[in-house]
Amino acid sequence: MALLVLKFGGTSVADVDRIRNAAFHVKREVEAGHACAVVVSAMAGHTNQLVALVDQAWGFKERRKQNDAEASAQYDGREYDAVVSSGEQVTSGLLALVLQSLGMRARSWQGWQIPLQTDGAHRAARITGVAVNELKARMLEGEVAVVAGFQGVAPGNRISTLGRGGSDTSAVALAAALQADRCDIYTDVDGVYTTDPRVVPKAHRLAKISYEEMLEMASQGAKVLQTRSVELAMQKGVRVLVRSSFAAPGLAGKGDAANGLGTLVCHEDEIVEQNVVSGIAYARDEAKVTLLKVADKPGVAAQVFCPLAEANINVDMIVQNVSDDGRHTDLTFTVQSADLDRALEVLRKAKDSIGYLDLRGSTDIAKVSAIGVGMRSHAGVAAQMFSALAEKGINIEAISTSEIKISVLIDAAYAELAVRTLHSLFGLDSR
Amino acid sequence: MALLVLKFGGTSVADVDRIRNAAFHVKREVEAGHACAVVVSAMAGHTNQLVALVDQAWGFKERRKQNDAEASAQYDGREYDAVVSSGEQVTSGLLALVLQSLGMRARSWQGWQIPLQTDGAHRAARITGVAVNELKARMLEGEVAVVAGFQGVAPGNRISTLGRGGSDTSAVALAAALQADRCDIYTDVDGVYTTDPRVVPKAHRLAKISYEEMLEMASQGAKVLQTRSVELAMQKGVRVLVRSSFAAPGLAGKGDAANGLGTLVCHEDEIVEQNVVSGIAYARDEAKVTLLKVADKPGVAAQVFCPLAEANINVDMIVQNVSDDGRHTDLTFTVQSADLDRALEVLRKAKDSIGYLDLRGSTDIAKVSAIGVGMRSHAGVAAQMFSALAEKGINIEAISTSEIKISVLIDAAYAELAVRTLHSLFGLDSR
Repeated sequence: MALLVLKFGGTSVADVDRIRNAAFHVKREVEAGHACAVVVSAMAGHTNQLVALVDQAWGFKERRKQNDAEASAQYDGREYDAVVSSGEQVTSGLLALVLQSLGMRARSWQGWQIPLQTDGAHRAARITGVAVNELKARMLEGEVAVVAGFQGVAPGNRISTLGRGGSDTSAVALAAALQADRCDIYTDVDGVYTTDPRVVPKAHRLAKISYEEMLEMASQGAKVLQTRSVELAMQKGVRVLVRSSFAAPGLAGKGDAANGLGTLVCHEDEIVEQNVVSGIAYARDEAKVTLLKVADKPGVAAQVFCPLAEANINVDMIVQNVSDDGRHTDLTFTVQSADLDRALEVLRKAKDSIGYLDLRGSTDIAKVSAIGVGMRSHAGVAAQMFSALAEKGINIEAISTSEIKISVLIDAAYAELAVRTLHSLFGLDSR
Repeated sequence: MALLVLKFGGTSVADVDRIRNAAFHVKREVEAGHACAVVVSAMAGHTNQLVALVDQAWGFKERRKQNDAEASAQYDGREYDAVVSSGEQVTSGLLALVLQSLGMRARSWQGWQIPLQTDGAHRAARITGVAVNELKARMLEGEVAVVAGFQGVAPGNRISTLGRGGSDTSAVALAAALQADRCDIYTDVDGVYTTDPRVVPKAHRLAKISYEEMLEMASQGAKVLQTRSVELAMQKGVRVLVRSSFAAPGLAGKGDAANGLGTLVCHEDEIVEQNVVSGIAYARDEAKVTLLKVADKPGVAAQVFCPLAEANINVDMIVQNVSDDGRHTDLTFTVQSADLDRALEVLRKAKDSIGYLDLRGSTDIAKVSAIGVGMRSHAGVAAQMFSALAEKGINIEAISTSEIKISVLIDAAYAELAVRTLHSLFGLDSR
């Protein structure tokens, strides 16, 4: 017998038919003799409806016209949480009933009933403790615990929520508190791929991926798991299996990673045959900003990046070229595409204090990254990568690296070619 | 300063605009210096949607085909309550936000947060206690308590609900626990009328009505307040003001009954000028069943009514005439129209054990009642009533009386005429 946490996202509980499908996944695990807790999100779209009601109640539209900051400051996150958490309350009760209708013992648990305690940062609370004694005892007696995700109880006995996508974090935190053998995240994809299969048909699903790699993949746009939940899983050593809820539950066999189902996110020690590079990620939602002929003097970087930080604009890759005359430099960096216009405006306003000749912005770029914990022990990965891209005539505009990741900024037109080239280069093409 | 409980039903919080309208009623009372608790129902229609989801999750349609009783017995009311109570959670949070947006201090209270304790009879729980210490202290400091109606917490820390229309009962129980000066029920009518104004244009709103009369009026079809809430108000001595949420909040002045707004349901001692009859009620949803030539022997009534009780069919008025030969009797009684076909079937099956000549059923009847606590001290009310009806040529088919009510069963065609006649007879026509 294993102790399992299963988590179903919004699309997996979008209506009662989908909830019934989820219930069959649970049934398979129960019949295999496992003790199960199930974490559910709200029905797809329901949370958005509730948020819209809250915005309307608070009169956000009218208030934004007046004073955005003031309106946001007064906004009572405790009431937002009371309203918005009701979506998971509904699906938890419904799934418990469906499980009962299939002959299983089951009960729903709201955050405050467990209790799953959080801090008082309403709307984006952090979990501070999960009291699982009673819940676990009932699970071990064969009762399925159906837990409302996304929510907890804050000091003062008020309902709190964990921020959008927080149900992943609920599931991982519950798995950690239960010392569960595994936390299965049922979603609308069947695992984590070496790269986007729409770009590289030879992409294949990874049987295993390390927490660190998953974090890099996620922040690169492989939006399968909420980043916080991966960080928490890494910290607590929770083994997370990403798998599809749309696969027919009956056909899925015992359904663990050993049977080739889904992708297990785990400690790198558990991954026996580790490739140097596990995956190629790419992102097209960044934009490039170039400042031409900036004076090459101490403190100029601060004069560029401080006003951007003040405007809440995140800067990603930065590259600085010394110019011919030795007294000027060209400065290139990337921001989120959505922030480009604001970034340009901020820099135009700061032109006098920075001192530059010209300012250019472009969204016609892509960031391509090779990710793998194997890089730590293998030298020359970057050199291999740059050579391969050069061979295809792809110009690299900027580079950034971490211990387990190398990212390059290139012309958007070459994005697919670059991804395919690197996917082959690092031996990821499925045979 | 007074301590007030205000209750808004589903149509009064049907959308954010209606919730804002409700908030202005609250604002008026807050600005008058009163300490306020507000009890809210779910948005009109929302509870029905949630119940439909629960039925679907439990697979009620499929199960009913198999075994209705068994399916109902297994049905877990605790999960029904978890799902269905979410509607009031939403409106309580939204109203708190709207009140805050209007500059008031407010917070929402779920049943478990108060806590409002109930027994374990899920789906139709009875309130066993309301712990109002913290809530009241905050109210007295000027914070509006917005309470989710219809719900409480049962033993075992599970959410319970009070049955349909239970928010009236929540409000009265809260008012009792708070020792509130008044419990204002905001609804889509502006009070209790002497009779249906659609039938008698001269009907007028009663400024006050006693609990006992209100109970008789309600069970006669004047469906303004849930019966249980009136019983509870009577038992605890809570003064209940029925009033319209659709009246412009700003125009309503101080809005108490003394200003001629709404109908105050109170102890009869508080009603100075008591009419003999306070109101005329009528109902058309009853049907008449007649058994002809039943043997007039001991035990025959039991043989008729026991099988009906077993089939969960309520019998209302009963009249028995001795026949000419002295050995047979005709037995007439009424049931709800919806139960007529079932009642006839039950009686047909029991024909041999009862022994009757013929069985007849008719829905072509109406029950007209005169209600008033003044009857206790005034003799001859019934005689007056029968004479007035006889003068109009209206035949009385059955009579039933209580201390404060006289009901007659008549041909449905004469219902309006009878109501108008009695309304004039007892001096209820507005001048």
